[in-house]
Amino acid sequence: MKIICNKSDLVYGVQTVQRAVSTKNTMPILDGILIEANDNKIVFKATNLEIGIICSTNAKTIETGSIVLPSRYFGELVKKLPDIPIHIETNENYSTNITYGESSTSINGYNPEEFPVLPHISSNKLIKIPGDLFKNMVKQVVIAISRDEARPIFTGILTDIGSNGVKLIGTDTHRLAYRSNTIQTKLEMKEIIPGKTLAEVSKLIDNEEPVSISFDKNQVLFQTENISIISRIINGQFPDYNQVIPSNYSTNVRIDTKAFLQAIERASLLVRENSQDKANVIKLSISGEHLTINSNAPDVGRLHEKIPAFIEGEDIIISFNSRYLLDVLKVIDEEEIYLQLTGSLSPGIIKPVNQDNFLYLILPIRTV
Amino acid sequence: MKIICNKSDLVYGVQTVQRAVSTKNTMPILDGILIEANDNKIVFKATNLEIGIICSTNAKTIETGSIVLPSRYFGELVKKLPDIPIHIETNENYSTNITYGESSTSINGYNPEEFPVLPHISSNKLIKIPGDLFKNMVKQVVIAISRDEARPIFTGILTDIGSNGVKLIGTDTHRLAYRSNTIQTKLEMKEIIPGKTLAEVSKLIDNEEPVSISFDKNQVLFQTENISIISRIINGQFPDYNQVIPSNYSTNVRIDTKAFLQAIERASLLVRENSQDKANVIKLSISGEHLTINSNAPDVGRLHEKIPAFIEGEDIIISFNSRYLLDVLKVIDEEEIYLQLTGSLSPGIIKPVNQDNFLYLILPIRTV
Repeated sequence: MKIICNKSDLVYGVQTVQRAVSTKNTMPILDGILIEANDNKIVFKATNLEIGIICSTNAKTIETGSIVLPSRYFGELVKKLPDIPIHIETNENYSTNITYGESSTSINGYNPEEFPVLPHISSNKLIKIPGDLFKNMVKQVVIAISRDEARPIFTGILTDIGSNGVKLIGTDTHRLAYRSNTIQTKLEMKEIIPGKTLAEVSKLIDNEEPVSISFDKNQVLFQTENISIISRIINGQFPDYNQVIPSNYSTNVRIDTKAFLQAIERASLLVRENSQDKANVIKLSISGEHLTINSNAPDVGRLHEKIPAFIEGEDIIISFNSRYLLDVLKVIDEEEIYLQLTGSLSPGIIKPVNQDNFLYLILPIRTV
Repeated sequence: MKIICNKSDLVYGVQTVQRAVSTKNTMPILDGILIEANDNKIVFKATNLEIGIICSTNAKTIETGSIVLPSRYFGELVKKLPDIPIHIETNENYSTNITYGESSTSINGYNPEEFPVLPHISSNKLIKIPGDLFKNMVKQVVIAISRDEARPIFTGILTDIGSNGVKLIGTDTHRLAYRSNTIQTKLEMKEIIPGKTLAEVSKLIDNEEPVSISFDKNQVLFQTENISIISRIINGQFPDYNQVIPSNYSTNVRIDTKAFLQAIERASLLVRENSQDKANVIKLSISGEHLTINSNAPDVGRLHEKIPAFIEGEDIIISFNSRYLLDVLKVIDEEEIYLQLTGSLSPGIIKPVNQDNFLYLILPIRTV
């Protein structure tokens, strides 16, 4: 393999695929980045066997071929290279010369034959989503998933595609986030995609570029012009979310999103100081023309926040985990939200006042 | 105590003195910030008994008095407060109400009488230095000091003031940084100031404002209009730096600072990968019209950098710890430096080509 490329293309390719390199690996080759030089194009690949990333960039290929280079050292080196043409040439024993001007570094590489083959996914079952919409949808749902790998379904996001468009649902069983969007598609399927994968895809794609999503039996493929991300799908039965979302409420509160968020942030600071309380309990009192927040950490102090609100229905006192409220208030861009409640022991609903396609369900905490 | 102040003044005062609060303290009161309300001014104080910071800001005092509030929680709370007038009022038992609009937080404070009294330093022995000059001088010298508290002298910076101005000297015995500047003063003294103190002062002062430095028997005081920083002085005998700085050299290399820095950065990446080598050894070869850098990490690869240089005197091969070179090249703003050497086993000197008042001495590594 013998190529000439510029620094920015090299950095782009390496940094893009590097996100798939696992820090803890039993197979040394997975610490590496596969570089394939085709005609006038180089392709970078990396995988941790859960997710694989492929990135194409420009280069002048003098001699086609491939090599695997250690991800961390190679990744840091390219960032520090001068901004002049960079020559990369493999020698025998997979040693690779990186030459820049009068200087050069030789890196011990690995046999590219030993690099795992990334699965091929046909693009038959395909849907296209604008980049900025995809990012916004993922951002609003990924907040509700679990990090507990022992229950894999709840680390995933149910991706429900049908004639109405795309629905994303995430839940850790304490709260649930639902986001839909009408998108023209003939595709009809329900798959659980790892939340980590969707978060990675969100970070890698541009706002301006659409992302194509294709499905295979156990795999999902995300594609933009230069980048492909392949991930496994999570097998299992996702809970029936329609069943848990209440259709009625006895109290409806309309409140300023930012004022509510900032008050919850202050309340969170205090409950965090309360070493006896792992559940971050804050109490909401809804009555008259105000929503009142109380939290208490006996050793440190207590907090009383009063926010103007437009309230319909019954007065209510209800307790929530402050972190679950924070998570959702941070991803709502609308100025006002509805908080809809049905008694102190039933789940509450938060949704933006002018955005019909997002809903967040949150279980209350039973307090004495 | 009863005051009204705005958010930005409160945040400024708290964040300024918070830098003196130790994270590991046996005395709970030292986790606190002392707030003193005088006539139309509030004064914030914090100390870890090594360094004390005092900051004055504006406030409307309704009732003079003082209180100690827990630094971490209070500090995070003020950052999250709305940008409206904030009322702070102490009650019995040192409980303190922070009221903002219709909301309020009450914090359990401490008895201000228990807060340690910060020493008073008379401003007799005083020198004034422009803020930007002070910062630049400290930045160039603090790189050379030790972090090893077992040898306190080498964690300090010798501050040598006389009719020629100010000289700062720092050394960890492997390298030494010397920086001087002519400043009009009648003061004549030599004291070892903790490097940490000088670094903190640099972070707290403005470029545009002069800083006054006054000395007492065991203390030093730094002052700007709103901020005072008091620190202990380190007792002991600082090595005679004039004796270790060589006055001759047999090789003089003039080289581009940035090109040298970037090559050393790449070399550092590689030697860091070399698990057998804790000394970060890189080899410089000086001959003809080039300075050549070689480094080698057998498991990972090897590097060969060739930089154009203007060389006078003998050819030489010499090895250094790459970190010691990096440290100094990052704090030199001049385009070119001199590297002056006297054989492979004698200390080398690095100094900017057009800046006479800075010098860095570095011991070579004996390699086989």
